[in-house]
Amino acid sequence: MAPPQEPLLSGRPSSDVSNDNNLAEEDALLTGERQQRPSGPPSRWQRWKDIGLFAWALVATAVVIILAVVYQKQNSENGSSGSNPTGKRNLIFMVSDGMGPTSLSMTRSYRQFEAGLPYDSKLTLDWHMIGQSRTRSTSSLVTDSAAGATAFSCGKKSYNGAISVLDDHTPCGTVLEAAKKAGYMTGLVVTTRITDATPACFAAHVNMRSEEDRIAEQMVGAIHPLGRVLDLMIGGGRCHFLPNTTDGSCRADDTDVVALSKKDGWNYIDTRKDFDGLKLGSEVELPLLGLVADHDIPYEVDRAQENENYPSLDEMARTAMKALSAATKNSDKGFFLMIEGSRIDHAGHANDPVAQVHEVLAYDQAFSSVLEFLEKDDVPGVMVSTSDHETGGLAAARQLTAAYPEYLWFPGVLANASRSSAWLTEQYYTHLDHAAKGDMSAYIKKQLKTGLGVEDASDDEIKKLVDNPETAAYQFADIISRRAQTGWSTHGHSAADVNIYTSDPHAAAPLIGNHENTYVGEFLRNYLSVDVESITQELKDKGIKLNSVDASGNEVSWLGKMPEKDERLDGQDHLQHYDGNFKKRHVGCDCGL
Amino acid sequence: MAPPQEPLLSGRPSSDVSNDNNLAEEDALLTGERQQRPSGPPSRWQRWKDIGLFAWALVATAVVIILAVVYQKQNSENGSSGSNPTGKRNLIFMVSDGMGPTSLSMTRSYRQFEAGLPYDSKLTLDWHMIGQSRTRSTSSLVTDSAAGATAFSCGKKSYNGAISVLDDHTPCGTVLEAAKKAGYMTGLVVTTRITDATPACFAAHVNMRSEEDRIAEQMVGAIHPLGRVLDLMIGGGRCHFLPNTTDGSCRADDTDVVALSKKDGWNYIDTRKDFDGLKLGSEVELPLLGLVADHDIPYEVDRAQENENYPSLDEMARTAMKALSAATKNSDKGFFLMIEGSRIDHAGHANDPVAQVHEVLAYDQAFSSVLEFLEKDDVPGVMVSTSDHETGGLAAARQLTAAYPEYLWFPGVLANASRSSAWLTEQYYTHLDHAAKGDMSAYIKKQLKTGLGVEDASDDEIKKLVDNPETAAYQFADIISRRAQTGWSTHGHSAADVNIYTSDPHAAAPLIGNHENTYVGEFLRNYLSVDVESITQELKDKGIKLNSVDASGNEVSWLGKMPEKDERLDGQDHLQHYDGNFKKRHVGCDCGL
Repeated sequence: MAPPQEPLLSGRPSSDVSNDNNLAEEDALLTGERQQRPSGPPSRWQRWKDIGLFAWALVATAVVIILAVVYQKQNSENGSSGSNPTGKRNLIFMVSDGMGPTSLSMTRSYRQFEAGLPYDSKLTLDWHMIGQSRTRSTSSLVTDSAAGATAFSCGKKSYNGAISVLDDHTPCGTVLEAAKKAGYMTGLVVTTRITDATPACFAAHVNMRSEEDRIAEQMVGAIHPLGRVLDLMIGGGRCHFLPNTTDGSCRADDTDVVALSKKDGWNYIDTRKDFDGLKLGSEVELPLLGLVADHDIPYEVDRAQENENYPSLDEMARTAMKALSAATKNSDKGFFLMIEGSRIDHAGHANDPVAQVHEVLAYDQAFSSVLEFLEKDDVPGVMVSTSDHETGGLAAARQLTAAYPEYLWFPGVLANASRSSAWLTEQYYTHLDHAAKGDMSAYIKKQLKTGLGVEDASDDEIKKLVDNPETAAYQFADIISRRAQTGWSTHGHSAADVNIYTSDPHAAAPLIGNHENTYVGEFLRNYLSVDVESITQELKDKGIKLNSVDASGNEVSWLGKMPEKDERLDGQDHLQHYDGNFKKRHVGCDCGL
Repeated sequence: MAPPQEPLLSGRPSSDVSNDNNLAEEDALLTGERQQRPSGPPSRWQRWKDIGLFAWALVATAVVIILAVVYQKQNSENGSSGSNPTGKRNLIFMVSDGMGPTSLSMTRSYRQFEAGLPYDSKLTLDWHMIGQSRTRSTSSLVTDSAAGATAFSCGKKSYNGAISVLDDHTPCGTVLEAAKKAGYMTGLVVTTRITDATPACFAAHVNMRSEEDRIAEQMVGAIHPLGRVLDLMIGGGRCHFLPNTTDGSCRADDTDVVALSKKDGWNYIDTRKDFDGLKLGSEVELPLLGLVADHDIPYEVDRAQENENYPSLDEMARTAMKALSAATKNSDKGFFLMIEGSRIDHAGHANDPVAQVHEVLAYDQAFSSVLEFLEKDDVPGVMVSTSDHETGGLAAARQLTAAYPEYLWFPGVLANASRSSAWLTEQYYTHLDHAAKGDMSAYIKKQLKTGLGVEDASDDEIKKLVDNPETAAYQFADIISRRAQTGWSTHGHSAADVNIYTSDPHAAAPLIGNHENTYVGEFLRNYLSVDVESITQELKDKGIKLNSVDASGNEVSWLGKMPEKDERLDGQDHLQHYDGNFKKRHVGCDCGL
């Protein structure tokens, strides 16, 4: 997959057919110099003239053809930068949620250490980096995933918490909706809840990202002005599709969204066994609703150890590509697919470098599979990959004491760990709730050793974990982060620019350099040549009819509740999902001041 | 300067002259279809044949010319990616020492806030971003500036502390030395000591970066195997050129390097007045040794308030470009110039976001001037800009309390500040040493207000500054960082990838994407088509003769002392320079654990 170190835009040697010598030759022909030569008798002159003219025309025409072919080839190598492509094509948009530039250097060095690779061994992503994206929203210098994904889906800035609605709380048409309208097939693949902000922004519209129940209904097309705009969804978040009369539901009401979806023709799967039945895409019937986890799919570092229960991001991505490719085989339009490495972000929120390196590697694997698909597929296609924001303020360096720090960090510490801090915390809570507790210090020591490879925990560290289980997740993450000397500045997001990658730097040439995140959104719609503005109008026109009246007789917009003044919308409460019962127990971190 | 948002590699519309219709026309002509038509009498047939043939030849030739012109133009737009340029040319290499990706997002937002600019107003740098560089050295995942600059100068990895020597302690030829040998003129412009690691790596070779006395001697050509390789140096670090019998010297011996340099023909200046006499380059006589500060030139935020004492990076850069351009006017070779924004790194070490945003803006200004020079200059030239590493583990976000953080940071806090923490610390120490001390709390409050714009300092903050003046620099920086909610993970360097910028993404196309820092070095030598390997051999052959014998009769290599086993070489003791008497007073920071 990885070529030797070479420029992304490889050099085009100057062609012999257009050099000065040849131009001079053509000039000589054009001036008709041969006519000045002393001529023989008329008939001989005529024959020579004929031959000369014919030779001239023939040579000139041959040169035309050669030049035209060279020119054609060059333009096709250059891709269609600046002009829209034509013909059938596929677009795969990958989102590495919360992955900042430093996640890459950390994961790259981890991989080199763990696999014994040389210093210049790169991630697959590294081979395809072309630029950076600026991420701020209208409401803050630090975006959340909702405003971040709205910039991609609608190509417009909005406020933190907005699911493809703008500052004036009107819906904006998305590239996915416009693609569907134009005849493309569409899909979403995520490792978090399919109703979470990033996927939601492509196929739903609500004023507050917390309205995931409503988002679920919109995404299956049950209450969406355009009806069903999706052909495939694979990810977690099943709980928002089940009525609250059912085990495993997290809905506020008893709406059975799975039943609604089936009525609308969706094929529903919800187990690893069902997923295996899809045979990586060759046995898929669309539309497919695959909800393979209650909330999030476990972190890759944990999932890999229960592979029998959950598919990987790579498996889900390959399934989606194969299914959508097959379904569009006889169409003159291809597909639009969004694939999100959702939980890189969660590992950042948790400040857990172990979880993060495995999430980034899983994303890199899916990225490789997308490259392979595009390379082999007959239909032209492009993949663009970027992040919505950075999470955690990650630094691959950390000063631990007052002494001036050495210049180093320790990937080997991460290589010794085999579990996320979230998983260890869940185990700890289960132990607290159910086990004959016994010597809690001994339990903690054992967990630190088996889960994190840490055998030198100090008495203070053990005691704090025993005394303060409510902050255990942060404590586990801090124990491993300090030993690896990886630094974090926040459990939230940061304003760092994030990297842009592509399968094809020629087709995606407009994205070379540093760009506003909305410009990535513009590229997506331009690549597919779809009309997002008319979708916006249609959403407005038809949406009104979906408004309802609540028990008190008040009208409820199909876009859901309006945020209260100063209400926080930036999705902090997704903490409750990514760390199990974290929020319930959370009282605070020991992060200074 | 800044164009509207558009792809760096602008689109090339497909040309009408090569489209399918025209190709079909040419095919028809080529098949000689007209010969199949019913003909008139021979003479008429002959005339038509002549006209037809002639028209065919004429059309074909015209198309050849058009295609050739288009092709030529296109290739010239593509630049010379992948092949070495020919002819006279200039290369300007800019180094933003210690500037990581987050320095850009922080400074960009600061500038937007401070100048009331819209959210999509970019730094000049942003318009020219093309990739990233990986920075690790042979001795650590976290490089220092010495190994970082050796990667640029020699195109080879080495250990932290190495000044253009390799792991085996042999010298490696630098792009600057090779350029000089090939007939280019050469220059260095910095805001730190000219003997510091980054500039030193281009024109000196020592085993340990701390040997700045030796570096000074090598840089003027007094004790260098190749003699003088530089035509211009402007920066700080005068103290290493003055004998220790002189005020303002920091040399260990009584060698008068200024006198040595003058003997070798250098024109020496050491004041702002002298610098002004250079008239921004139009009154320069080469070789020029301009040492305009004892140690470092003050941080830009402070320097701007004593502009009468120190020139700016921009002024020095413009002076160098103009002088080198004039001096090479009648040469068939251009110049190689390295310009370093040296103190972005120092602001990172100090964890001082106020100092940093002004350093980055000063660098952005110099970057703009380089673009302007290259645009106007008759000689083709390229500028490449990158960093050696990130410093500080900067995050544009910071969690201050146990509560889940809001998604924001406050550039306005930085806009209220007018002084670096280093300057405030110097003032504080002067006050402590000399003033009638009086109410120290009142003094600190006044300084916080006038220097940092902070009027809400807590009693604890004031008390700590009064009680612990030895850590005042870190305390001032922390007071402003917390309020701006900018995070730092270390006072040292980090392993983050750093950005690459260029004046010309076509000429520098090999640098698009993510590259090892040595690849940047390879680009530099390739662009100039100079032979670095023969310089390496020459250094080895001639260097031996420069070895000396010390008082004890031991041979001393011209490359200076060898590091002791486990000796730290990564330049931590440059702390003593960038913060005045910082190290003397430094006992530690309050950075956790």
